[in-house]
Amino acid sequence: MEKKRINVVKIGGNVIDDPAALAEFVRIFASLEGPKILVHGGGKEATRLSKELGIETTMIEGRRVTDRATLDVVTMTYAGLINKRIVAMLQAEGCNALGFSGADGNLIKATRRPANPIDYGFVGDIDPEDVNATLLGTLLNAGVTPVVCAICHDGRGTLLNCNADSVASAVAIGASRIAPTMLTYCFEKAGVLADVEDETSVIPLVTAENFQTLKDEGVIAKGMIPKLTNALYSASKGVEAVRICKAENLLDDSGTIIR
Amino acid sequence: MEKKRINVVKIGGNVIDDPAALAEFVRIFASLEGPKILVHGGGKEATRLSKELGIETTMIEGRRVTDRATLDVVTMTYAGLINKRIVAMLQAEGCNALGFSGADGNLIKATRRPANPIDYGFVGDIDPEDVNATLLGTLLNAGVTPVVCAICHDGRGTLLNCNADSVASAVAIGASRIAPTMLTYCFEKAGVLADVEDETSVIPLVTAENFQTLKDEGVIAKGMIPKLTNALYSASKGVEAVRICKAENLLDDSGTIIR
Repeated sequence: MEKKRINVVKIGGNVIDDPAALAEFVRIFASLEGPKILVHGGGKEATRLSKELGIETTMIEGRRVTDRATLDVVTMTYAGLINKRIVAMLQAEGCNALGFSGADGNLIKATRRPANPIDYGFVGDIDPEDVNATLLGTLLNAGVTPVVCAICHDGRGTLLNCNADSVASAVAIGASRIAPTMLTYCFEKAGVLADVEDETSVIPLVTAENFQTLKDEGVIAKGMIPKLTNALYSASKGVEAVRICKAENLLDDSGTIIR
Repeated sequence: MEKKRINVVKIGGNVIDDPAALAEFVRIFASLEGPKILVHGGGKEATRLSKELGIETTMIEGRRVTDRATLDVVTMTYAGLINKRIVAMLQAEGCNALGFSGADGNLIKATRRPANPIDYGFVGDIDPEDVNATLLGTLLNAGVTPVVCAICHDGRGTLLNCNADSVASAVAIGASRIAPTMLTYCFEKAGVLADVEDETSVIPLVTAENFQTLKDEGVIAKGMIPKLTNALYSASKGVEAVRICKAENLLDDSGTIIR
């Protein structure tokens, strides 16, 4: 029996922070056929809530330093407010969404990052082997669409703040143990651009082979390097293809393919 | 084939607000054998967060008036912070907990309460027919323990703040369509007391028959009336028995039985 392809889609702040963009994305995602999983980041909501509560936000290399108070803020924001808002919106579009943190059903176990050289606090890293693919399979077979935020747990009772791009990658690698899996990162640009000023300059394909050249030539800029490294890692671990495109182009085949 | 009895347990603020009591409850609940569901309230956390955010808390007849800002606060607190904290703690005790709002998997659809005579805002009421018993059955069969907060949805994209006692009652009535179900309300007292000053004066059994007498005689006080009405309603709708007892007595058979 041929297994249906699983779609894992990741959205970040550019979609979550804009109510109209989020509503449109939800409609598009709900219409995507076959088994699917949504992974979402947190956008500016956590920073805004921290500010209102007088909790200082410290970012180091794009990662949020997560002390106990900040862990509560991101848990409330990602697993509570944003996750439930998206789940309710998807349900209204006829998509049987079910929200997850990594603790729920032991979906994703993470390991607290060592305090050296930088102490990020309650921040976790994920080994894709620690994704509960059996649970994903059961849910997808039952017609459920998991909606996953980037709060995971260590299995010993502590929640850990993880990177949403890494969660999406780990979930897609886990899903690829069930069926061929496609991972799409929704991005503010139309794809990886050869010229950052020119939306038509999308690089159609990035592979392990041309990635080095693109870096050496300076075509791929600073912020794109971790994203592409993540995508190439996913492809090397069994994900059929990774795509970077605009959220509104989810249903077409535009953007950059990484494999 | 005989079906295993399902246990639905509800905890409120007296357990949630006390870290030591919560840790002990989690250990006891995790050791409860057979299929089980936990329903939790929100305790003082939502009021505390509202205060820190400068949002006024208005309670009318024990119900929180839920404007848009308060809906965000209770969604963050109940579905985010408290739900995920409990799920992670249960996972650490070897109980395969999975957190739910009513929106997740369309577990509980609620109806927004009419604005007359009192406008409670985003507050919902539940018809037990609108509990997704099929989903509960699938999860319990898979060895999953649903952990349910009192945020539900209207099916049209809006979250609604519901009463946790009513959620527990609706979930138990829904579960009783799958297998015989026992509903336990964890309470700060050892049960329904004949003399509120005397913890040994537990009334062992309340039925529809003696409830009226107990009310007429003034034995059952103000705050207990809605709780017992809820319990008797659950029993009349198919729940095998309802029990009110202390959280720490969950594993014995002390307390008041309502049926």
